[in-house]
Amino acid sequence: MEKFEVHILGCGSAKPTLRHQPSSQVINVREKVFMVDCGEGAQVQFCRARQKFSRLNAIFISHLHGDHVFGLIGLLSTMALAGRTATLHIYAHAPLQGLLQPHIDFFCRGMQYEVIFHSLPDDHDSHLIYEDRSIEVHTLPLCHRLPSCGFLFKEKPLLPHIRHDMMTYLQIPYYMVNTIKQGAGWTDAEGRTYRHEELVTPADAPRSYAYCSDTNFQPRLADMLQGVNVLYHEATFAHDMLPRAQETCHSTARQAGEMARLAQARRLVIGHFSSRYDDEQPLLAEAQAVFPNTLLAHEGMVIQVD
Amino acid sequence: MEKFEVHILGCGSAKPTLRHQPSSQVINVREKVFMVDCGEGAQVQFCRARQKFSRLNAIFISHLHGDHVFGLIGLLSTMALAGRTATLHIYAHAPLQGLLQPHIDFFCRGMQYEVIFHSLPDDHDSHLIYEDRSIEVHTLPLCHRLPSCGFLFKEKPLLPHIRHDMMTYLQIPYYMVNTIKQGAGWTDAEGRTYRHEELVTPADAPRSYAYCSDTNFQPRLADMLQGVNVLYHEATFAHDMLPRAQETCHSTARQAGEMARLAQARRLVIGHFSSRYDDEQPLLAEAQAVFPNTLLAHEGMVIQVD
Repeated sequence: MEKFEVHILGCGSAKPTLRHQPSSQVINVREKVFMVDCGEGAQVQFCRARQKFSRLNAIFISHLHGDHVFGLIGLLSTMALAGRTATLHIYAHAPLQGLLQPHIDFFCRGMQYEVIFHSLPDDHDSHLIYEDRSIEVHTLPLCHRLPSCGFLFKEKPLLPHIRHDMMTYLQIPYYMVNTIKQGAGWTDAEGRTYRHEELVTPADAPRSYAYCSDTNFQPRLADMLQGVNVLYHEATFAHDMLPRAQETCHSTARQAGEMARLAQARRLVIGHFSSRYDDEQPLLAEAQAVFPNTLLAHEGMVIQVD
Repeated sequence: MEKFEVHILGCGSAKPTLRHQPSSQVINVREKVFMVDCGEGAQVQFCRARQKFSRLNAIFISHLHGDHVFGLIGLLSTMALAGRTATLHIYAHAPLQGLLQPHIDFFCRGMQYEVIFHSLPDDHDSHLIYEDRSIEVHTLPLCHRLPSCGFLFKEKPLLPHIRHDMMTYLQIPYYMVNTIKQGAGWTDAEGRTYRHEELVTPADAPRSYAYCSDTNFQPRLADMLQGVNVLYHEATFAHDMLPRAQETCHSTARQAGEMARLAQARRLVIGHFSSRYDDEQPLLAEAQAVFPNTLLAHEGMVIQVD
């Protein structure tokens, strides 16, 4: 199966600790690398995850709190020093450009690449904001103390698998593989015709990954997330801190489990842990009570989306 | 002896590595904490060095390259979250305020403390920029690709030590100790007079610490640094890279040793290592060939200034 993996670079929250880095992730889809959020230190974590800056073409910023953006200028500066020439796309809420551009101009003088800012929508719908040959990225409307977006990474419908037994048996030339995958049949030298369906097995189901942080509990997201393979959902607090979670527009671990259950997700990964927890096992237990297939995020974790 | 120690938070250079953090140091003088430079990740390194944010009252920024400043906004934001109320002073070249203030306004909304920016001079002299009861901080004119300042931390002249044997013998009351330390003599009940010099032993020599980074080799600094207890000097390159050092306005390890020798420093600590060196022992050997009492900086290092 083609690569579709998520690297957790940081899963802490605003207050820094020696146990967690602030929010940042890498989504590697067939060696095309996307970053979601970029807390301070993300560039070093990125190197630690053995990812290549040259493969990074788009960064998605969920919201403009420092623990999700303070690593951007360092990352941009390092790529400038490394002689990057490829355009970099940053998807973020509108104020980021006005804040970051003067720092780029001052600290990255002479850089050889362009940074293009794309403003994220600030409404209650989901929008397609990025697509290439293999993937689409949709926003997920979250609810936090300032405009906040989640991101849904969806593989595009995949092509069916060629049946190698039929290829061999019918002596179909190799150059026909893609044509057949895309829907063609085959007629042999004697004029016998084989339908497309006889030559392939069904495509793998497209996979998807959703990032929901920072947000309070948003049950209405369930429709947009139906059947997601992996859901990363913030679980800043345990449920005994529900009032604090509501006050600060965060979610509890139980609510993260509830979200995964409503969305019929395959797997749930919880993160964005408050610095008050020296041990996140109680958060895990709480989410698992609602949604058993839950994992705790940790720095260095690699999640295979399947 | 009163505390006067330097904590190395980062001694790497611009390109991040997994071995070194970017430039940052803490100078702790009698539990008053100063920071010099603040590369990305400095706040976490600060915690790792078990220093207290509440003791940090002034930050000195040598120059406005990213690897010396990108950690500032994260540090300021964390102190805001922690409810700091005490004014923080930042000494830096003038453009920093215009760059940082919009980020403070946006990312640290509602903060309860004031940040006061002090512009560093941009000439070829040394200036007294800070003093309190126990210490003075002077700038050191460095030469880099943009205006750059070193910093000389000098203890103020210390008071002499009281002679406890004389205190006991003459039954001098305890409340007189400070008066005598400050120069008074003592007259006993029978009218016998003891001179100040009979009641004290000489004060310790004031100690000093100098930070010189980033800069090319500046022999004219030697006068300002005469007899410094500890000199931290950048040694970005080995001497076989002298042309590259000159081109980028950095120093070689041999030049750092030469600087310590000219300044008649007691000890030299070299840092700001280029990411090309996986092992800095050759840099150490090179500096030691000129100035034997040299140490390599490393993250977590604590230098007692004595």
